[in-house]
Amino acid sequence: MSKTINKIAVLTSGGDAPGMNAAIRSVVRTCAYHKIECVGIYRGYQGMIEGDFKEMDARSVKGIINKGGTVLKSARSDEFRTPEGRKKAFNQLKKEQVDALVAIGGDGTFTGAMVFNSEYDFPVMGIPGTIDNDIYGTSHTLGYDTALNTVVEAIDKIRDTASSHNRLFFVEVMGRDVGHIALNTGVGAGAEEILIPEEDLGLDRLLESLRRSKQSGKSSSIVVVAEGDKIGKNVFELKDYVDENLAEYEVRVSVLGHMQRGGSPSCFDRVLASRMGVKAVESLLEGKSNFMVGLLNDTMALTPLENAIKGQSKINLELLRVSDIMTT
Amino acid sequence: MSKTINKIAVLTSGGDAPGMNAAIRSVVRTCAYHKIECVGIYRGYQGMIEGDFKEMDARSVKGIINKGGTVLKSARSDEFRTPEGRKKAFNQLKKEQVDALVAIGGDGTFTGAMVFNSEYDFPVMGIPGTIDNDIYGTSHTLGYDTALNTVVEAIDKIRDTASSHNRLFFVEVMGRDVGHIALNTGVGAGAEEILIPEEDLGLDRLLESLRRSKQSGKSSSIVVVAEGDKIGKNVFELKDYVDENLAEYEVRVSVLGHMQRGGSPSCFDRVLASRMGVKAVESLLEGKSNFMVGLLNDTMALTPLENAIKGQSKINLELLRVSDIMTT
Amino acid sequence: MSKTINKIAVLTSGGDAPGMNAAIRSVVRTCAYHKIECVGIYRGYQGMIEGDFKEMDARSVKGIINKGGTVLKSARSDEFRTPEGRKKAFNQLKKEQVDALVAIGGDGTFTGAMVFNSEYDFPVMGIPGTIDNDIYGTSHTLGYDTALNTVVEAIDKIRDTASSHNRLFFVEVMGRDVGHIALNTGVGAGAEEILIPEEDLGLDRLLESLRRSKQSGKSSSIVVVAEGDKIGKNVFELKDYVDENLAEYEVRVSVLGHMQRGGSPSCFDRVLASRMGVKAVESLLEGKSNFMVGLLNDTMALTPLENAIKGQSKINLELLRVSDIMTT
Amino acid sequence: MSKTINKIAVLTSGGDAPGMNAAIRSVVRTCAYHKIECVGIYRGYQGMIEGDFKEMDARSVKGIINKGGTVLKSARSDEFRTPEGRKKAFNQLKKEQVDALVAIGGDGTFTGAMVFNSEYDFPVMGIPGTIDNDIYGTSHTLGYDTALNTVVEAIDKIRDTASSHNRLFFVEVMGRDVGHIALNTGVGAGAEEILIPEEDLGLDRLLESLRRSKQSGKSSSIVVVAEGDKIGKNVFELKDYVDENLAEYEVRVSVLGHMQRGGSPSCFDRVLASRMGVKAVESLLEGKSNFMVGLLNDTMALTPLENAIKGQSKINLELLRVSDIMTT
Repeated sequence: MSKTINKIAVLTSGGDAPGMNAAIRSVVRTCAYHKIECVGIYRGYQGMIEGDFKEMDARSVKGIINKGGTVLKSARSDEFRTPEGRKKAFNQLKKEQVDALVAIGGDGTFTGAMVFNSEYDFPVMGIPGTIDNDIYGTSHTLGYDTALNTVVEAIDKIRDTASSHNRLFFVEVMGRDVGHIALNTGVGAGAEEILIPEEDLGLDRLLESLRRSKQSGKSSSIVVVAEGDKIGKNVFELKDYVDENLAEYEVRVSVLGHMQRGGSPSCFDRVLASRMGVKAVESLLEGKSNFMVGLLNDTMALTPLENAIKGQSKINLELLRVSDIMTT
Repeated sequence: MSKTINKIAVLTSGGDAPGMNAAIRSVVRTCAYHKIECVGIYRGYQGMIEGDFKEMDARSVKGIINKGGTVLKSARSDEFRTPEGRKKAFNQLKKEQVDALVAIGGDGTFTGAMVFNSEYDFPVMGIPGTIDNDIYGTSHTLGYDTALNTVVEAIDKIRDTASSHNRLFFVEVMGRDVGHIALNTGVGAGAEEILIPEEDLGLDRLLESLRRSKQSGKSSSIVVVAEGDKIGKNVFELKDYVDENLAEYEVRVSVLGHMQRGGSPSCFDRVLASRMGVKAVESLLEGKSNFMVGLLNDTMALTPLENAIKGQSKINLELLRVSDIMTT
Repeated sequence: MSKTINKIAVLTSGGDAPGMNAAIRSVVRTCAYHKIECVGIYRGYQGMIEGDFKEMDARSVKGIINKGGTVLKSARSDEFRTPEGRKKAFNQLKKEQVDALVAIGGDGTFTGAMVFNSEYDFPVMGIPGTIDNDIYGTSHTLGYDTALNTVVEAIDKIRDTASSHNRLFFVEVMGRDVGHIALNTGVGAGAEEILIPEEDLGLDRLLESLRRSKQSGKSSSIVVVAEGDKIGKNVFELKDYVDENLAEYEVRVSVLGHMQRGGSPSCFDRVLASRMGVKAVESLLEGKSNFMVGLLNDTMALTPLENAIKGQSKINLELLRVSDIMTT
Repeated sequence: MSKTINKIAVLTSGGDAPGMNAAIRSVVRTCAYHKIECVGIYRGYQGMIEGDFKEMDARSVKGIINKGGTVLKSARSDEFRTPEGRKKAFNQLKKEQVDALVAIGGDGTFTGAMVFNSEYDFPVMGIPGTIDNDIYGTSHTLGYDTALNTVVEAIDKIRDTASSHNRLFFVEVMGRDVGHIALNTGVGAGAEEILIPEEDLGLDRLLESLRRSKQSGKSSSIVVVAEGDKIGKNVFELKDYVDENLAEYEVRVSVLGHMQRGGSPSCFDRVLASRMGVKAVESLLEGKSNFMVGLLNDTMALTPLENAIKGQSKINLELLRVSDIMTT
């Protein structure tokens, strides 16, 4: 593990997120600063297997800090889940004389990196990049802050039309397993109710709440629903249910969808990505491996990849209470 | 028709659109400028029937020029489609001593105004407010320009994630009968194909085009689809069809939905609304009635409501060709 | 003039404007569509003199339709104003076997193109790209619509703080010779006064108007000032003058500056740029030369470069009246 | 201090900041939730002296969570700095039967609250609202995150034009005493240099750095300068100095100004404001007084007002190093 590192590879894998380009830029420039080489791997682990590499220097990441998506592209790789696939990947890295890897992505990305590390004792470092903020070991994943702003701006627009027509909108936002986006944007957009995977409000309580909201004089309502809400109904089923049981409202549905993954990163995400890239490269240079870089208490911190994967990112329960208070 | 006008009422009806508030502000302030009274009617024709009125002066429209939606709210009114409903409405206007009406909305709004005018010889003037731009007699309806920007910004975000993953996206935009939004945002966002109600590309040609696009090296594609596209399949059916017949792409769908109706109006829409409000009020003061105010060749123009309703807003066929050239 | 055209060069010159990249893309792709070659010239006429050329095909303009600035960069060239400079430039074009030129820019750019054409009978076509909209022969120059939105968004923000503190703001916007930006953003942002090069409001009337505005209960005010306003004082001098003569207000100044030139182009500017690029290339292929492509009555039109340069872009006087009515 | 609290007043004072309205909304609704009365005070301490009060209930703060500025307006009050002024203010509060005060603002606001509390044993609670983030006891002040995004978006636009023309821009951002905004937006916008009050880079090193940057092939540069930069020259003087000593660049200046204070708050600021309002009111109800609510390690925390005023908000030195690495 304490071999000298002369060349670092960087890849993005899993769902893309705003700030991934800023993180790539940071990894590349930190390598340049420490006068070591850097190589970009296209299309995640699949590109690693196929040797889809590109030398990168400080110039080659010019003008990408504010771009959404990932210039290295991302892809799933079933092949990397097999020992044969990983062997091919290792050989490609050897051929290219790569000494260490920075993998930007989510849970699946980190699992791949960890297995690869355990098989080949190859130095790896993870950077959490996903809008869902569902990673243990960091208060914020890359892209999460940007996605929150994208979602509240969209809901602000929907609110314009909802309040012009006295309508009830179910707005579906991303979050299959955790409700971070729904909870924060629900509070931020002043939603009347927030349905998240962590808590089962129950359909009866939802109806009751909407009924009360109407009686208190509210003419329009927004309910923010995480993809994986606990009630177990998707937004269209929720609409049907309310249509049948609550005559007071004209109900509409909006699924925000993939738009949430894109866009120019917020200042927060750009700064976070810059910090994480520096920390990832310098940790590798210090001989560390198998960690994820994270933000804890506003400070860069390392968490073993294993913990990052097994641990659970918890929502802030205080926010549920804040939401209740705001809408009572 | 040449009675003196001392008080004008203004309402918004039909789907809301950015710029409606700027138009209300303009109507109110133009009345103030000419030292006549102005009254706002809430919830369109239904509020007219119910006498849901509010006196408005220059101060009461402060700070709304940049707000989406409509402060006067909008609503459908089945009752106004009956002679009894319209009689009630007329009586409310008489009681309030209203001498003329400015109605902001689309086709349905104008039909209501025209029938009302024919029955009671009541001076009416229409302002076209709808994001769809589907009104004859104006090159631009209020809200259309804003919606175009909202849509291209959303597609720019989707493009980030599409190109990171080599995906094909079907993006559904508004436009049940006309393809203005799809056509312009398709060109503006650099879409590979644009499906509109006016032209049947045909599923075979669509597949062919996507196949060629892939072969030419494009890794991701956006197809913009108007709600009322001629092929007659909705975006989800299109996805299924392409999934079955075109293995090269991973296909995703995004329905932009009601977000397109909201948001702070663009400078263009604010200026247009301000001009239209002045023109509507001053035309009424000049004794004109039963017209729609419109923008023709960058100039304010009047079109008889009847023509505005019966005429057809045509898409710019030149743009279809531009789109073809851009994506070949 | 009727030689066959096999290769077209494109350059941007003068101040950059949003939409220039979309226009470059359109020129390049229209060439590809017609199966002729296209070469980009860096840094305007200076790059033409120095032979700073780059072959461009459909792929090389991928992903730039929504980018501000110009990928071909822009520069002033004193050398191109000399016969020797133009001779060098002509030789470079010959060497590169370029048959025609599309020049994107403003007055200065077109003058250069026209002189070059007259000396070497070299086919040229102009595309108006400048945020100032100060070109005769087109209702809209590229970048103008985007700049209007950038400015009203900035003034909306300034309004937030102005109205929180009961302040008067002088906001300086671009426009040395024409008041298009000031006039439209002044109306769009609901400014209390608008100072433009075309009209001398006079300092006394300005004071009077501000005094009246304050008395009518307005607590804050925005005055939009074009760089070249007729009163002949810059915003800082205006502030001092009002400070001395109008105790009622706390006065602040904001100079929006170069920010106005940047940003992702609006849908309008992207579509306009796409149309103009097609028209410019196809006009050259039809044997036309020495024209500027423009938008007149929503239609692509050609204006002789000489007229475009000598003619004067006039502001819409109706808007001055609309502004007066809105703020009375 | 342990009197029962039945009515709470809320005011905003000092420079306005995005999120103030969201905080007002939260204070008002938390009062409603706990079934106590709430009164808004207009124009800060001056309005308190003059009795410019308004009863507020849950409905009266509808639709303001996403609005910039402050609906309660802000103002300086020299009178409140005198014992006589504060006596008047106290009497107004007594007359209105107000039992406690939430003051939203910065250092000056908190000093006023603390003095008032010491003289009249009146329960007060502070909420840090200022874009400068210059308050001890909270990692983020209200409005700071929004201002960061406003600034990077503006610099992104300036970058478009800078890189089109190979120019050097000095961009002045807010921050008289602390460099938070300059440092974070400098990193976020990829600035070549960042000048802040906390560190004297020195003019020679600045020139050296710019020279090196140019030699390394960078064609354009952005230098972000805090108002109170240590070098002690304002941006215009810096421009002159570089003009004289560095011929390689064409230098321009942009002062972002008051625009930075406005705009719709980011999701982060809306959520933070909502949390702070709840915490402020509930702390008062628990009998606490003379504290500022803050965010420390992502958790709501109380800091004695005295410490908040005397303590110093420190910039993150790690970021200076990150910036150096990114631009080497």
